[in-house]
Order: sequence, then structure tokens, then C-alpha cells
Amino acid sequence: DAQLRAEVAKLIQPIQPVVISADQKAKVELGKQLFFDPRLSMSGIISCNTCHNVMLGGVDNLKTSIGHKWQPGPVNAPTVFNSKLNLAQFWDGRAANLKEQAAGPIQAPVEMAMPHTLAVEVIQSIPGYVSQIQAIYGTDKVSLDHITDAIAAYEETLVTPNSPFDRWLRGDDKAMTAEQIAGLKIFYESGCVACHNGPNLGGNSYQKMGVVEPYRSSSPAEGRAAVTKKDEDRWFFKVPTLRNVELTYPYFHDGEASTLEEAVVLMGRLQLGRTFSDDEVKKIVAFLHALTGERPQDVLPLLPASGPNTPRPDPFK
Amino acid sequence: DAQLRAEVAKLIQPIQPVVISADQKAKVELGKQLFFDPRLSMSGIISCNTCHNVMLGGVDNLKTSIGHKWQPGPVNAPTVFNSKLNLAQFWDGRAANLKEQAAGPIQAPVEMAMPHTLAVEVIQSIPGYVSQIQAIYGTDKVSLDHITDAIAAYEETLVTPNSPFDRWLRGDDKAMTAEQIAGLKIFYESGCVACHNGPNLGGNSYQKMGVVEPYRSSSPAEGRAAVTKKDEDRWFFKVPTLRNVELTYPYFHDGEASTLEEAVVLMGRLQLGRTFSDDEVKKIVAFLHALTGERPQDVLPLLPASGPNTPRPDPFK
Ligand code: HEC
Ligand code: HEC
Ligand code: HEC
Ligand code: HEC
Ligand SMILES: [Ca+2]
Ligand SMILES: [Ca+2]
Ligand SMILES: [Ca+2]
Ligand SMILES: [Mg+2]
Repeated sequence: DAQLRAEVAKLIQPIQPVVISADQKAKVELGKQLFFDPRLSMSGIISCNTCHNVMLGGVDNLKTSIGHKWQPGPVNAPTVFNSKLNLAQFWDGRAANLKEQAAGPIQAPVEMAMPHTLAVEVIQSIPGYVSQIQAIYGTDKVSLDHITDAIAAYEETLVTPNSPFDRWLRGDDKAMTAEQIAGLKIFYESGCVACHNGPNLGGNSYQKMGVVEPYRSSSPAEGRAAVTKKDEDRWFFKVPTLRNVELTYPYFHDGEASTLEEAVVLMGRLQLGRTFSDDEVKKIVAFLHALTGERPQDVLPLLPASGPNTPRPDPFK
Repeated sequence: DAQLRAEVAKLIQPIQPVVISADQKAKVELGKQLFFDPRLSMSGIISCNTCHNVMLGGVDNLKTSIGHKWQPGPVNAPTVFNSKLNLAQFWDGRAANLKEQAAGPIQAPVEMAMPHTLAVEVIQSIPGYVSQIQAIYGTDKVSLDHITDAIAAYEETLVTPNSPFDRWLRGDDKAMTAEQIAGLKIFYESGCVACHNGPNLGGNSYQKMGVVEPYRSSSPAEGRAAVTKKDEDRWFFKVPTLRNVELTYPYFHDGEASTLEEAVVLMGRLQLGRTFSDDEVKKIVAFLHALTGERPQDVLPLLPASGPNTPRPDPFK
């Protein structure tokens, strides 16, 4: 056990709790309000939280997300929990960081469908937002930058420390069950850790989905190649974090693996050329359940009232 | 002013703050989780809070609500804030109380579209809900009754005390502006208070929409007649509360009045046979803005993780 811990600790680190400094508080509070504000969507009923529900697993638990006018999107929504640890954002890494990422969903036609100019107009029309932006950014002229900067600051607080695995990693032998430790052993020795490593057990590299055997999917997503335009990057995706994975079903970029068992079996076969026994699968899945951390306890945000000129929602636009 | 206060206080009372007794705490907490839980919807992305957003005005700010598969419903969503004060629930009062009401939206095809048996199955499959229900109700066999009872207990805590008007009513002359007091005077003297009275400035009787002049609407809703089956009850609706009305646009059961000004002008004409001057409208609207109370400050609920057999959402069913 001590031996396993020492080995694993070289490749995986626990989640550090977040400390919100006094000068960041106001920005984080603004970002939280915006994250939960459906007025950032054309329909008026979709917020970031709709698809990345922080009261659940930071996801929507759908195969692929559903947005404006009930349109299905092309890929599975990844969790916002611990997303600050990712090397880049989105399955293909096309956004460099959380701030850059946040601009995307607001205007995406199958997500919030709100043109950026209109999003800014909405926030500008809400006195309670203007006063916060004045206090934080020193101007009463709202920009998209303020919106995404604040949302990103809030998202950076969405970490989930103290999972049973993290507690075991920090020395508590009793924090994981014998079955979970056995599962970790297989996870480490068979090679899952080659890709699912770092503090997020993932999120820090692009790897091919279907290394040994190709992955058959009806999803159009080609992953990293969409950004680099290189043929050899086809089917490379950002390795997703395995933290809180029991909460973030269904699995893979296309959401086609309904259960963790299915995802583990496929990973074994496609990534390692290995067929796990039912017992091995059970142990690995038990270990994956040990990766559920403590979700942030927080105050429900109260959003500022619309102003006299706040543009009205248009659900059928 | 003291005279006006004495007169008004005979007909309208302030909101009493809620005290959650020790033995109610667990039930209110369970009800809060359920109120925010989209797993009570067929699609997995609609919760009570979607249409009755307690971070905003307890409504969705749409003309009529949009639910499962983006279907528009027939009427405007009333606020859950202070709804416990209503004589009955729904525009036509067809639900006697909050507990009875909550069963409706869960299975309504244009709302959450979740058959009751499936809703119960979902909750039964979530260990974290079963343990709460065991602790509160003394059984581990979940029923719809548990779900609606807990949700109602949570809703009963959704009151908004200390509006400027309430503070004025309790003796603080400075709590409302001169314009707002002037507006209250017109509200009282012209006859608005004949229907919009009691602690909720409404919610305590059914009245005709279109007393002096008929109300022309394309909405199919006939109001109270749908329940009593009496012709003379056509176009009678539960008088809505005016508390927080600045947050609950658009107005009337069909959502056809986009602004408070429009609603006030129409009320004057249709209910009182009176044409208000622009100045009178401005004052009344200023008074209506004084009815915004303090929304509950609360902790964000963390919802219990799905179990191995939790039915999966089906957004296209
Ligand atoms: C209608 C659904 C929907 C809405 C609304 C939505 N997202 Fe997403 N989000 C997704 C999907 C799907 C992806 C993956 C897209 C991709 O990789 O191409 C994603 C990806 C992300 C990621 C990248 C995570 C990672 O690990 O790569 C972040 C961060 C994120 N969203 C935050 C937000 C924020 C902030 C908002 C609101 C401004 C928001 N999302 C609104 C569906 C949604
Ligand atoms: C060569 C790299 C690599 C190896 C080795 C690997 N994975 Fe993965 N894993 C990935 C990538 C990339 C994805 C995302 C694939 C996709 O979405 O198409 C992924 C996805 C997953 C997921 C789904 C996560 C989610 O949120 O959708 C699970 C669970 C998982 N891996 C577990 C494992 C296990 C267990 C092993 C070892 C048996 C393993 N992986 C080995 C690269 C790897
Ligand atoms: C898709 C939209 C939608 C969802 C979801 C929804 N509601 Fe409603 N709610 C409405 C509409 C519209 C009405 C008015 C219906 C009527 O009067 O016929 C209403 C009425 C009510 C009322 C009556 C208020 C009054 O003053 O008469 C209450 C209370 C309420 N809903 C609570 C809930 C609860 C609790 C849930 C979740 C179990 C919920 N609602 C889910 C749209 C929704
Ligand atoms: C005879 C009864 C009656 C009188 C008098 C009356 N109202 Fe109303 N009021 C109602 C009813 C009933 C409704 C709901 C009508 C509907 O939705 O179709 C309503 C709705 C409203 C609304 C919209 C509330 C919402 O949430 O949609 C406002 C604002 C309002 N009244 C203000 C006033 C004002 C101001 C006056 C006086 C100028 C007034 N009312 C006089 C019965 C009355
Ligand atoms: Ca997923
Ligand atoms: Ca599958
Ligand atoms: Ca309304
Ligand atoms: Mg109109």
C-alpha cells in the first residue's frame, strides 16, 4: 500500500482547496451570478448551469447537450468541476483557457444562441450588473470581456477536494476500500495512468481515442484535428478528467458509453488492447467511484433585477 | 401619511418572515433539493426552478412557459414567492394547496413530462434521497406524496419580507419615496385595493378579468369556469399577487402585457372604467416597484448522486 501510494503519487496529485482572496471575492460573486443567469440566452431559460449543473456533476447527464429550441449539439458536455486544471478547454482544446471558452456557448446557435452584442446589451441594461462591473473593472461600459472574465473567475473556484482517493493519497489507509485499492492497482499497472494522470487524472494532454483498435462512433467530431488541421490529429481528444466520473455519465465525447463499466471495458480494449475480466472491471469502477470529491458549498446567487430597457427573451427566434 | 397608513393597514398586511423549526429543517432541505432536481423531468434538464427561478423573480419571464421538447404552454407562470398565501394554486385555483399543486407539473406533457410512476422510480433509485425520506417519513418506500409534501414545505419558506412598502406600513415614513406614496394613494382610492389586498396584495379571491370592459386575448384559458363548470365563472382568475411584480414580467395569465405600465393602464380601464393620466400611471408603477421584498438567502443545494439503476433521461420522448 505504501509502495503503491509512493508510485501513484509520482503521477497523480490531490486537488488543492481554493482560497478566494479578498480582492477576488467581488469578481467571483459576479461570475457566479452570470453563470446562473438565463438572461444570457436568447430564450431566457438556458444558463451555463443548465448544461453544467453544479448541484449535480457539473454536467447535464445527456448523451449530447440540448440547447436553444431543443436542438441537440454534437458532443457530450464535460464537467466544469476542476476544469481550471485542463491544458485547454473543449474536447479539441480550441479555447486556451476558461475566459476564452465562456464566449463560445453564449452565442452558439445550438446552445444559448445569444449574439455577443445582445448579451452585452442585456448586462448593460441591468443596473445591478453595471454597479458590480463598475466596482470591479472601474468602468460602467460593459464588455464581453468583463462577462467572460468574471465567469472564469467563478469557475476557478469549482474544485472538488477530499475525494476518498485524495485522502488515501495523503496517507489515510482507510479512505478507500480494499476493492478500490485493488482497482487503483490495476488502473496503475495496466496503463490507464499513462493518459489519466496529473492532478485531474486527465485534462493535461490530447490522446488518440482508439489507439490499438479504432473507436466506432456516429459522432462527426474529429477532435484535435479540427484545430490543428493535421490528419494525424484525427480522433485525438483532450483526455477527460476522471474526477467525479461517477456523476458525469454518459461517457466519451459522443456520450455513447452509458455506464462506467462500458467505458472501462472499451478503454481497456481500445487503448490497451486488453480484455478485462468482470472482476477487474468491477474493481476499476469501484476505484473510479473513489474519485468523487466534495462539491463546493455555496450561497444561492440572487440575480439583479432587469431594468426598464432590458431586452426581452425570444424563445422562438 | 399616518392617515393613509391606517387606512391601508386595514386591508393589506406585511409579509411575516418564516422561521423553520428544527423538526422541519430536514423536510425543507429535501424539498429544496427536489425543487432544483432536473431528474424529475423526462428530459433531465427541466426542474421546478427552470420556470420558477428563485434566483430571479420565482418565474421564467416568458409570455407562457416552455417545457419538454420546447413546447409552449397555455399560460404565464406565476411566482412561487409568497405562493403559500394564496387561497388555492394555479390561475383557476384547481389545486387546493402547494402539495397538491406540485404533482401537476411533474407529469404535465408540456412541462416536465415525467409520469408519476417514473418520477417515483427515479427518486427511489437515488440512495441519498431514500435515506432522507427514511429519516423524515420513516419509510424507505418512496411515494409521490413524499416528493410533493417536501417540495411544498420548501416552497412555504419562499417569502419575501421587508419590501419598501412593508417597511413603510410598519411605520418607516422614509421607506417609500413621495412618488411611491402618491402611487399607493391612487392604488387605494381608485379601487385597485378592492381586489389586490391581504398580505399578498392578491391571491385571496377570484375576480373577473374585464369587469367594465371585456379583456380581449387569444389565450384559450377561461379561468375559474374550468373548475366550477359555471358559465358565470368565465374569465374569473385568481387575483395575482402584486408582490415582486417588477420581477415577474410579462403580465396577466396570458403574459400579454409586457410592461407594468401596460398592465396598470389595462387594469384601470378594464377593471375600473378609468383612464389614468401618464403621471398617475407613473406613480402607480413606482408604488408597485416598492413591493419588491428580500428574496431568501440560502445555500445552493447539492443533489444526491444517481444510483446504478437510476432511469436515464429521454429528451426526445
Ligand atoms: C446547451 C449546452 C451548454 C451550455 C448552455 C453551456 N455549455 Fe459549456 N459545454 C457544453 C458542451 C457540449 C461542451 C463541449 C463542447 C466541445 O468540446 O466542443 C462544453 C464545454 C465547456 C467547457 C470545456 C470543459 C472541458 O473540460 O473542456 C467549459 C469550461 C464550459 N463548457 C463552460 C460553460 C460556460 C461558462 C457556459 C455559459 C457561458 C456554458 N459552458 C454553457 C454544453 C453547454
Ligand atoms: C492512450 C490514452 C488513454 C489510455 C491509456 C486510457 N485512456 Fe481513458 N480516455 C482517453 C481519452 C482520449 C478519452 C476520451 C475519449 C473520447 O471521449 O472519445 C478517455 C476517456 C475515458 C473515460 C470516460 C471519461 C468521460 O468523462 O467521458 C473513462 C472512464 C476512462 N477513459 C477510463 C480509462 C481507464 C479505466 C483506462 C485504463 C483501462 C483508460 N481510460 C486508459 C485516453 C486514454
Ligand atoms: C415548464 C414550466 C413549469 C415547470 C417546470 C413548473 N411550473 Fe409551476 N407553473 C407553471 C405555469 C405555466 C403555471 C400556471 C399554470 C396554471 O395556472 O394553469 C404554474 C403554476 C405553479 C404554481 C401556482 C402558483 C399560483 O400562484 O397559482 C406553483 C405553486 C408552481 N407552479 C410550482 C411548481 C413546482 C413545485 C414545480 C416543480 C414540481 C413547477 N411548478 C414546475 C410553469 C411551470
Ligand atoms: C375587479 C378586480 C380587480 C381590480 C379592481 C384590479 N385588479 Fe389587477 N388584477 C385582477 C385580476 C383578476 C388579475 C389577473 C388578470 C389576468 O391575468 O387575466 C389582475 C392582474 C393585475 C396585474 C398583473 C399581475 C401579474 O402578475 O400578472 C397588475 C400589475 C394589476 N392587476 C394591477 C392593478 C392595478 C394597479 C389596479 C387598479 C388600477 C388593479 N389591478 C385593479 C383583478 C383586479
Ligand atoms: Ca460525460
Ligand atoms: Ca453504448
Ligand atoms: Ca407574470
Ligand atoms: Mg402587449
